[in-house]
Amino acid sequence: MTVTYEKGNLLYTGKAKEMYTTNDPDVLWVEYLDQATALNGKRKVAIDEKGLLNNRISSLIFKDLARHGIANHFIEQLSDHVQIVRRVKMIPLETVVRNAASGSFERKFAVPHLTKFAEPVLEFFYKSDALDDPFINDSQVAALKVADAATVAEMKRQALLVNQRLQAIFAAMNVQLVDFKIEFGLTSDGKVLLADEISPDSCRLVDEATQQSLDKDVFRKNLGDLTTVYQEVLQRLATVEEGQ
Amino acid sequence: MTVTYEKGNLLYTGKAKEMYTTNDPDVLWVEYLDQATALNGKRKVAIDEKGLLNNRISSLIFKDLARHGIANHFIEQLSDHVQIVRRVKMIPLETVVRNAASGSFERKFAVPHLTKFAEPVLEFFYKSDALDDPFINDSQVAALKVADAATVAEMKRQALLVNQRLQAIFAAMNVQLVDFKIEFGLTSDGKVLLADEISPDSCRLVDEATQQSLDKDVFRKNLGDLTTVYQEVLQRLATVEEGQ
Repeated sequence: MTVTYEKGNLLYTGKAKEMYTTNDPDVLWVEYLDQATALNGKRKVAIDEKGLLNNRISSLIFKDLARHGIANHFIEQLSDHVQIVRRVKMIPLETVVRNAASGSFERKFAVPHLTKFAEPVLEFFYKSDALDDPFINDSQVAALKVADAATVAEMKRQALLVNQRLQAIFAAMNVQLVDFKIEFGLTSDGKVLLADEISPDSCRLVDEATQQSLDKDVFRKNLGDLTTVYQEVLQRLATVEEGQ
Repeated sequence: MTVTYEKGNLLYTGKAKEMYTTNDPDVLWVEYLDQATALNGKRKVAIDEKGLLNNRISSLIFKDLARHGIANHFIEQLSDHVQIVRRVKMIPLETVVRNAASGSFERKFAVPHLTKFAEPVLEFFYKSDALDDPFINDSQVAALKVADAATVAEMKRQALLVNQRLQAIFAAMNVQLVDFKIEFGLTSDGKVLLADEISPDSCRLVDEATQQSLDKDVFRKNLGDLTTVYQEVLQRLATVEEGQ
């Protein structure tokens, strides 16, 4: 039996995606937009194929993770820009996993760029545009009732598993996974489920041969043409995934 | 047998204290200065009796904590401005315990002033003037090798015990303990020991009757005469401690 999903009402417009309901209340229709934002949305630019590329990359990664035992919200890639996902109640925390120093960690602690950590660093940021997504610790998460301790522990457990698998995928692509951001939701039966997207928008990637950025830093720092870079990531990823 | 301590060489000048060696390598001589600083030391003002008051307040609190099973570096108050303490290797973390929202927590999370927490909030700040004492989580503490996991767990355990006892002391003084900062060191045999000072410089205190600040916020926010306020705290504390 083939399930057919119909696009419903717009639920939410994000920085690079739009979420719609479908004819199934447990399923959402995600449109990946051909645009990039920086500075928490203050800078927004249309970019050819970006939505298509991120949709393909994210779909390939979510399928890979599921095959490796890491459940997530992905159901299917419906078209170039559309992904069908399981509906969850999003937990308003960005979970950041770092394998080497970069970005805010590098600036905050004055650590040399790309210093490798013996163990991955885990950070949470409280998703709130009004508060500018502040860095938050477990104790503050509990005090603000953002998530309970069991949920936080499960998010950490899954984030480290995602990191292990992503490191393997990117290593096979000759890419260093410096850090990445993921988001989780709660299913209707209260389980923590990986959601949102995993793409060069949310990962910091460095080409092991050239040390060039292969991620959204190309856009943030005006280092070159984002579409070309994302195409390169997709091509290498597709080659690795086809080999599996 | 009476031990006599002799003042040795200046080891360290802090914002409100000077530390000297003594004739005993395991013992330090602390001089509480009659000065207050704000804005991480950028503003510094001489204030009559402040060192004397903080020395007395801190000595009374350290003695009370020790009587209640919370070991700390205090040995004796030698004179108005001098305190003799056990020498430890300071752990470069400020441990903040919050019972209600104020200061940076209130600003960061836009929570109403003095919102009470169901459980105390614990935060660490990495002591570094160059980095402006950044907020740090357990994972970053481990990555930067600031302290190992067992030390961090022990600091949290002791911080919560200190909070319980301080809340009881201040409640008996009709004062609300909003939050406080403490620091720990490691003894030569590797034990985590409460050190530094506990005074209105490091606690946020509110008079339960008048809702007035009874702490360094009087200085930070120019709310009145700091000496008068610290004298009031010392007088109430001495009354409570004499009753024990």
